[in-house]
Amino acid sequence: MTTNEKRLRQLQALLRKNKLDALFVSRPLEAGFLTGFHLEGCLLAAGKDDVRAFLPKMLFDHFRSVVPFVKAEASDDPAGSALAFMKDKGWRKAAFEPETETYLGGTAWRKKGLAEFGGLTASLRQCKEGDELAAVRKACAIAAKAFRIVKPRIKAGRTETSVALELEDVMQSMGATKTSFATIVGFGPNAAMPHHETSERRLRKNEAVLIDFGCVYHNYCSDMTRTFFYGKPDAEFRKVYAIVQKSHDLGIKAVKPGVSTIAVDKVCRDHISDAGYGQYFIHGTGHGVGLEIHEPPRLNTRYKGTLKKGMIVTVEPGIYLHGRFGVRIEDTVLATGAGREILTK
Amino acid sequence: MTTNEKRLRQLQALLRKNKLDALFVSRPLEAGFLTGFHLEGCLLAAGKDDVRAFLPKMLFDHFRSVVPFVKAEASDDPAGSALAFMKDKGWRKAAFEPETETYLGGTAWRKKGLAEFGGLTASLRQCKEGDELAAVRKACAIAAKAFRIVKPRIKAGRTETSVALELEDVMQSMGATKTSFATIVGFGPNAAMPHHETSERRLRKNEAVLIDFGCVYHNYCSDMTRTFFYGKPDAEFRKVYAIVQKSHDLGIKAVKPGVSTIAVDKVCRDHISDAGYGQYFIHGTGHGVGLEIHEPPRLNTRYKGTLKKGMIVTVEPGIYLHGRFGVRIEDTVLATGAGREILTK
Repeated sequence: MTTNEKRLRQLQALLRKNKLDALFVSRPLEAGFLTGFHLEGCLLAAGKDDVRAFLPKMLFDHFRSVVPFVKAEASDDPAGSALAFMKDKGWRKAAFEPETETYLGGTAWRKKGLAEFGGLTASLRQCKEGDELAAVRKACAIAAKAFRIVKPRIKAGRTETSVALELEDVMQSMGATKTSFATIVGFGPNAAMPHHETSERRLRKNEAVLIDFGCVYHNYCSDMTRTFFYGKPDAEFRKVYAIVQKSHDLGIKAVKPGVSTIAVDKVCRDHISDAGYGQYFIHGTGHGVGLEIHEPPRLNTRYKGTLKKGMIVTVEPGIYLHGRFGVRIEDTVLATGAGREILTK
Repeated sequence: MTTNEKRLRQLQALLRKNKLDALFVSRPLEAGFLTGFHLEGCLLAAGKDDVRAFLPKMLFDHFRSVVPFVKAEASDDPAGSALAFMKDKGWRKAAFEPETETYLGGTAWRKKGLAEFGGLTASLRQCKEGDELAAVRKACAIAAKAFRIVKPRIKAGRTETSVALELEDVMQSMGATKTSFATIVGFGPNAAMPHHETSERRLRKNEAVLIDFGCVYHNYCSDMTRTFFYGKPDAEFRKVYAIVQKSHDLGIKAVKPGVSTIAVDKVCRDHISDAGYGQYFIHGTGHGVGLEIHEPPRLNTRYKGTLKKGMIVTVEPGIYLHGRFGVRIEDTVLATGAGREILTK
């Protein structure tokens, strides 16, 4: 059985548990998660006893070749066809997810008798299994390997853009289909902006280099950041780097099933605060990674969650000294039965 | 004045016209359209008399450097801060757009007294101006030029993937930041699937080659498709190609301000139907192109719209003979005062 087939069965178990007859899924992200078909235009009527996909004619053959385990119907009006199917099946309690449907779409479903019921696909997506885990693992391995290849080629005179493009080329040559977000390459003071837009600035001797990047492999993302000093680092860079590295290492060690997301953030944050740089760590410690580059759970001071086996999160503390330099060190980490495994290495 | 500043003023005029005090915009696409800041996490409270952006601390400096013409506030709770601002300003009729907000988000806004009001940003986005038009123009020029460079290098033995990657590399080297969608390269029977997933299949002598691709430049997309025969085409390929080419040319000539979207589709469709291939043209004739690769207006048999000066649409008729070959010819076209201008050439 493929991972997608398992996911559909898990959803059906959740439907029965919550006394729902069916879930209507229209967003490509969730429909892709459940079927492996990620293109826009597929409406999935996932019933507790039967699953049917409704698509425009143009996508029909393609869907059938990718998803042989779900019956599909070509329709110019997928919503109308799905509602007719609901009636045929006698489903009385069908639902949509309010966090993934638009207000317009949800309002239309409610008028047709569907109820809102959140969190079903989100709860399944958090713990990765089978093909999903294999895809993230590969996306992480590609990113890490690409960095090892490109790092020695980063020299004075090169632009941030040229480094980003080279990293992306190398990742694509290893099978990545695209980047998981716009690659950030920041030289010198540009490294002090957590979301710096990669520019034509050239690297000079004795500057910080911060690279935040990742790729997509079989629809799943990777995310990592490396910071190093090009030239001879001064005392403050060495000091700040050591603090971030220790914070990062403590955070990674804290990742294991049963630990709260807030606790992982606290370990990283406390170390930086105790070292006197708390005010310069201006973002959360990490986030889930999967079909989306940022997805639940979040590791920060507010998000209430507990790590479970199969969750994949980033750990990425940073210190940003405006106008001077920044240091961030980030890995993508899998929570395992034994604790954790760093995937980006 | 920048194009974004103009867009904000146009939105304010629409607010006054519709007797609204403010529009709350949370989706990055629309917030980016209005400000030029495209990252997730910005909540824009666009009032008829004042505009304020609310962002997490991490994004604050970056926003201010990109959007000097909008006052910004760093906040851990952008929604709460925006509601407090609404109260301060005395706005009584604030709205959100039901087609861009999630059902969950829209429901929360309604509880806080906001009303749903659709179509404001969508109506502004359809006709491109200034920097927007320049960006699409450049994205189209890059794609067209890249195809001219790569086409002579397509030879027997090359894989679909290798051709896609080369096209993407060439577009990036000309300034594109990414592809506007997953590049489609289909050889032989793979060209008969409108949404074929580019594979490791190798090109053989005497096969059709279909390439559908585009890139993003300054956040705006391009989209084009070329089909050719590698080797000596047989009579049926030549016949089908000529029908699609004529349909495409008729469609492009039909594009001008004042014409209905259905009329453009009809011109293309009738020509293919009259030639006896109507059942093999299994998709719409085209779609708007801008910040999104597919956006309104649509050119098909159902969407009711009228072309206006500044609209940018694709014209892309096709004929797909399952298991044998397919032909699609697509250009991105601007509706101008004088008629139209093909941008992908």
